This record gives sequence, C-alpha cells and structure tokens, in this order.
Amino acid sequence: MNLPLHPAKASVQAIAERAQDHVDATRLATSLVALAAFGGRDDGGVSRETLTDIDLAARRHLIAQARALGCQVGIDDCGNLFFRRAGQRDLPPVLTGSHADTQPVGGKYDGAYGVLAGLEVIAALNAAGIETLRPVEVVSWTNEEGSRFGPGAMGSSAFVDPSRLAGYREAADQGGVRFGDALDAALADSDDVTRVPMARPMAACVELHIEQGPMLEAAHVPLGVVTGIQAVRWFEVTCVGTMAHAGTTPMAVRRDAMAVAVAIAQELYSMASRDTGASTTPGAPELRLTLGRWAVAPNSVNTIPGRVTFTVDMRCLDDAVLDHAEAALRATCLRLASSPDAVTVSRFFHRTPTHFPESMLGPIERACARASAQAGRAQPIRLTSGAFHDAMYLADHCPTAMIFVPSKGGISHNAAEDTDSAELFLGVQALAYTVAELASREP
Amino acid sequence: MNLPLHPAKASVQAIAERAQDHVDATRLATSLVALAAFGGRDDGGVSRETLTDIDLAARRHLIAQARALGCQVGIDDCGNLFFRRAGQRDLPPVLTGSHADTQPVGGKYDGAYGVLAGLEVIAALNAAGIETLRPVEVVSWTNEEGSRFGPGAMGSSAFVDPSRLAGYREAADQGGVRFGDALDAALADSDDVTRVPMARPMAACVELHIEQGPMLEAAHVPLGVVTGIQAVRWFEVTCVGTMAHAGTTPMAVRRDAMAVAVAIAQELYSMASRDTGASTTPGAPELRLTLGRWAVAPNSVNTIPGRVTFTVDMRCLDDAVLDHAEAALRATCLRLASSPDAVTVSRFFHRTPTHFPESMLGPIERACARASAQAGRAQPIRLTSGAFHDAMYLADHCPTAMIFVPSKGGISHNAAEDTDSAELFLGVQALAYTVAELASREP
Repeated sequence: MNLPLHPAKASVQAIAERAQDHVDATRLATSLVALAAFGGRDDGGVSRETLTDIDLAARRHLIAQARALGCQVGIDDCGNLFFRRAGQRDLPPVLTGSHADTQPVGGKYDGAYGVLAGLEVIAALNAAGIETLRPVEVVSWTNEEGSRFGPGAMGSSAFVDPSRLAGYREAADQGGVRFGDALDAALADSDDVTRVPMARPMAACVELHIEQGPMLEAAHVPLGVVTGIQAVRWFEVTCVGTMAHAGTTPMAVRRDAMAVAVAIAQELYSMASRDTGASTTPGAPELRLTLGRWAVAPNSVNTIPGRVTFTVDMRCLDDAVLDHAEAALRATCLRLASSPDAVTVSRFFHRTPTHFPESMLGPIERACARASAQAGRAQPIRLTSGAFHDAMYLADHCPTAMIFVPSKGGISHNAAEDTDSAELFLGVQALAYTVAELASREP
Repeated sequence: MNLPLHPAKASVQAIAERAQDHVDATRLATSLVALAAFGGRDDGGVSRETLTDIDLAARRHLIAQARALGCQVGIDDCGNLFFRRAGQRDLPPVLTGSHADTQPVGGKYDGAYGVLAGLEVIAALNAAGIETLRPVEVVSWTNEEGSRFGPGAMGSSAFVDPSRLAGYREAADQGGVRFGDALDAALADSDDVTRVPMARPMAACVELHIEQGPMLEAAHVPLGVVTGIQAVRWFEVTCVGTMAHAGTTPMAVRRDAMAVAVAIAQELYSMASRDTGASTTPGAPELRLTLGRWAVAPNSVNTIPGRVTFTVDMRCLDDAVLDHAEAALRATCLRLASSPDAVTVSRFFHRTPTHFPESMLGPIERACARASAQAGRAQPIRLTSGAFHDAMYLADHCPTAMIFVPSKGGISHNAAEDTDSAELFLGVQALAYTVAELASREP
C-alpha cells in the first residue's frame, strides 16, 4: 500500500527525480574523456600529480567548463577550487566533488570522476530547469593523493582546519620544491578567480568515487552506499638479533631476527583469519591486516639477519577490533622476544573510524535504489571504505557521506583502473538525486 | 701401560715435538702485528681486499719475510704465493697456509693467521735445526674472500683445477676492473718470483684458521680438530600474489605474497628446530637454516605485497639431511602455494660435504692434545666447519684437514674479530707438530 508522501517531501522527491533523470550519459562521457587528456598516457592511465603544469592546465580546463555551466568559481588558500551554482537563498551550500590530481601513474576516474560528476549534476540541474533552495558547490580538492607532497588530502583537511596549512606549505617534493611555493604559483595562475574563505559552513557533503576495491564487482551491484571509512593504525615492529655467519653459527646459539619476525608475523596472520573469519559480507567489521614494508639487515644469503623491521597496517570500521588487535600485537611481540628489548613496536599513524550519519545514508540509498531499478540492476548495498578520501575530513565539518561505483578487478592507482561506463552513469544519477534532494530541503 | 713406540714413529714424534716446542710466542705476535698494519684500521680491523694496492704491498711483505727465513718463493698463474722450505728429498711437499686477503672490513686473523702460522712453523723448524724428509710449503691463496671478485676461494680452487682460471679472469669488481687484469698486475709486480705450476702434487695440506663460530669458546677448548666442512645448498623462493590496496581489499580475496612467504618460512624454522633438536653437541650433523636475503615488492606500508623473494641457506655435514630438508622445502612450497605457479623454488648453489680423512685427523689430534696439555688447557674436541675454506678445495687434491682456534663471541668478518693470543700460540704449536710429523713420514 503506497501512502501519498507529505506534500513538501513529495515536492523534494520530484525535484530529485527530475535532476536524476536529466543526467546525460553522452555529456558525462565526453567530460571524462576531455579531462583525462590532461596527463593522458598511451596505456590508458593518467599522470597528473598535484600542482604540476599538467594539473594547472587541468584546473584551467575545469574552471572554463564550470563557467560555461554558469558557475561562479572560487579558490581558497589551499588551492581548492569551488564551482558554485546559486540557490534560491544564500544558505550554506550542498557540496559535492572530489579531486583531480592523480598518483604518478593513476587512472582516469580516481578523483576526476567525482569532480566531473559534480559538474554533470549542475548541467542536469540546468537542463531540468531546477532552482534549488540552497546553492550547490562542486569542489576539486588540492593534493588528495599525497604522492608528490605528503600527507594526502591536504586540501580537504586544510579546508576543515585551516591551521593545518602552515605545516603543509613546508612539505617538499623529491625535486626540493615546497608545497607552499607550488601552491602560490597555482594561486597566481588563478588570479582571475575569487578567493573564498576556508572552513565555510556547508549544509552537507556527498563524494562520489570509484570503490578501488572488489566488493561491488563481486556482488554484481553497480552502486554502493558508503557507511563510513575504516579506522587505521600503522605500526613498525623491529626485531633485533645478532648478525652471524650462516655456516658457523649453531642453531641453538643463534639470535635470528628473521626467525622472530616470521613467528610474530605468522601469529598476526593467524589472528586476522581467526578473529574475522575472513568475512566476505560487505560492511562486516573485518580486521584487515597488511605487513607491507620490510627491511632486513644485512640482507645477505649467508648471514643470519641481525635486524628486521616490518610495518603492520591494521584497519577496521570498529575501533574496538583495532584495540584488541593492537593489544594482541604487543602481547605477541613481548612473548616472542628473546629479551625485553629484542622486539619493539611503535605506532606511527592512526585514525579513528569515520561513521557517516544515517541522515545522509537515507537519501543516498533512495537515490541509488531508483537509479539501479531504472537500469534493471541490483539494488545498492551498504559497504565501508577501506581507503581514505576527502570525505573523511569533511565528515568533521558537516553531514557527509559517499557513493561508490565498482572498480573492475578492484584495481586502482594503476593505469588499468576501469569502471563500466553504464555504472559511471548510474553513479552520477544517484549523485544528482542526492544533491538535488539535500539542496531542496528546508533548513 | 705405555708401550714404547715403533722406533721410526718415535723418531717422527720426537721431531714433531721438537718443532712444536720451538714455536715462539713473541715472534708470532710480532709477525701478526706487522701484517695487520697493511690495511690496518683505527677500530682494530683490517681492510685488505684481494689484489688491491694494500694487498700487493702485503704480498711483498710476506715474500720478504719468507726469504728472510730462507724460503724459496714461487707464484702460480692464479697469483697464489708458495714459500718453500726444502726437505731431505724432493718429494711432494706438505702444504700449510691460508689467505692474506680480507673482507672489505675484516679482522686481523681471518686467513692471515694461517699464513703467518705457516711461516712461524718454518721459523720453528729453523730454530730447532730440523731437516724434514719432505719439503714444507706455506701458501697464501689469492682471493679467498670473494668480496671484491666472486666467487671466493678462487686461488685454491684454480690450483686444484686450473681450468677454472679462465672463467675467474672475467669476474669484475664494482669498479669494472677484471680479475684477470688485477691478477696480471700482481704477477708483473712479482716478476722476481719463480713461476710454479698449478695442480702440483702435494703430500698433504693442513690449514690453521680461526673458527669464526662460537663452539670452541662455548666449550672452553683452545684447539679444535676439524673433521670436515658442511654441505650447503642455496635456494631462492619466490612467492607471487597480487599487489593491492591494504585498505580496500577484503582478507578473503587477497593474494598476499608475504602471508605465503611467512607461512613457508615458519614451517622451515619449525622443521629445523624439530629435526635437529637444535643440538649444541659439537660435530653433530645439525641442520643449519638461514633465511637471509629478502625482497618485497612494492614494499609499501599500505600495499599488499605482490611479490616476495627470500633465500634459504641450508647446511649440514650430512648431505642426506639436506636431501630431506630440500624435499621438505619443496613440499611446503607446493602445499602452501595458492596456485601451481604462485611459489617457485630454485636452487642456485650447492656443495656436497667435505670429510677430512682420519689419516690427517690422528696427527692433528695428537698435536693439539700435547699443546693443550702443556698449557694446562682442556683437550681438543672434534668439530665441523660451517664456513668454506681453501682446505675444502685442497681436499679434492691431497689428504687435507684443518685446525681451529676459538673466535671470541664467534664473531668474524668484522673489525671486532678476536682470538686470545695464548690460543693463537697453541694453534701454531699444533700446526708445527702436525706439519713436522707429516713432512717426516716415510712415503
């Protein structure tokens, strides 16, 4: 039994549906191809690291595209670009977008898709003749990737907390160029663009992104409602033994740093598979464990390793799981150390989980459901993001959430990154619905 | 009840004892200090890689020292230096010696001790007025260490099988210098030295060396009778997985190359400790297992390793133990590989065990027993060598054996390498006895 919606709700829903239905697949595809030409590679990938000449050219291209759509263009002190479509009232805007920079060798869609999707939403609103209550802004964040200047997500994190910017300005790339100097050059390049304040109030933020993982593809689902971003903790485990001759040193007197490191690593892998059951259920609070970086000294065939260092990357949406895993890591290291100082554990980075609010997930779910149903595709699933995104920082600033589209083979940060064009289209449809609804709600 | 020895034996034993008793501690210490000055370092170590200017100067020093002792000096096509003390008859000589080259940073005694011990034996024979039946030759082998030009033990292995030399000549150091060119320069530098043939018959060979391991020190024994040299097999294990994002990739779909490598490594360590009981009994056929060199790609904190390679160094005096261990390694890799080509094992070096003959061990044991008893020290023990030595190749050529003196802390290939001077003295006493006995026996 379908009850009629509350008139105001019905009106908002009608606006959202009209916006969704005016997303144009050809216009989107053309827009994606045009931006991918900036730093485009023969292998299909894109090399467009932040604030390089290629990136600056791409920024000018985006500004021109936004102006052609009737947007006001603004830039803040961290070089974040904002493309604003006015609303009926000058309320805090609904923000969407992502980043246009890439890894040294990246794909066409990581970040760029979210920015161009935002511009396509504006094109759809224009085509539908919709005047939203609130302004809609599309953002292209500076330096999300962090590959040229660390850390990543500089633009979004500085927007949320501008005190971060002074430190970021001192970061230097491998050629010795300071981020601050590259940023100043980009700002000078945009001297025809209005400077807008950082940390401005935003009504909400929605980021559309490729999943960069295999969950949606495995589930044969074109759209994912992202409920949050996993917590992460990074550790360095250092095992110290005694470097000695592989031939002359009896097993009983060895202090083999690699034997200790392997025993610890094996216990960690066992813990991860035991505690999580290696669940494939999307959204389950699985512990993800990666021992990614290793250094062995002296690293010689016939010398017993005297020192082994390896990193532990632990992630889970549930911080309590990481509390448990960290305690287990520390206990394992203590237990397997031959002497109190033979194994040390240091935590060098951590971030608590991001939980996107249900107030955001509802509209996104409705938007994804309608787009998927119209396309005859499976209904959306909820999942968490294993990777960081600009939305992680925006969540500290305003109600925020994300939409994912599938990544073929889960591949990203790679020229082989790809997403089916029909799924890219559905993602923008869902975004248009969500943005139109959020921008049409009474405060 | 002591039975009188056979007159001939008694005579040989008397000669051997007289030689032993004429070893001079001060003369030996002076000789060791003098050679250590060539490449001597402030930290007490020695940097004298083969055929460097420093090594050529050390060779001239040794030649002068040998001539001062009345020796004839010869050099062969591989630059091996022979210092010959004539015997009553022109029979194949008894050979002793070792090598004078060092690791990039080595100690004062690794190799040098064996060469200078040989010259001290000649000094003792001179002082005792002994004319041996056979000639005695002291050798200083070229490039035992193999650090500048690989492989090691070039001089001794080429002496035994001169067909090896042509290949060795093509080896180049990091500066691009060919071994053949460096060798020709050394031969030119020794143009006043008689060229002697390679692969000449030798009656026997005894090499005195520091243990480079902890067994003698742990047993509080100053002299070890080396019964053989362990067999060795070197493997490279390559685990191939799929490089992927540490955050976005669920545990169940990972193909983590490091997780597989760690599981294999853990099984190997378990096998080694289970199969050998990690015996401390000197001479027991213990399996020694070292996983020394690791390469991880892409070796990044937040990327699941896509490729891990590690080396396996297996040693044992009993080749059957290595047969078993190799089979276990291959079975473990097969069992833990997620697909047939996910783990590959390649054996890139092996050497069967060297067993020194009892005909050599007897005289050495008597020599060591007498020297130890006179010094009020514990009786010699039998042990095996975990490291390679020139004697390993000479064993293919003539009856060969070795004597070990302790290494403090088992340390070698290090400036901190050290041996007590009283133990260095006992080693030369034992060598003098052994050489004198072997050189005095009727053919």
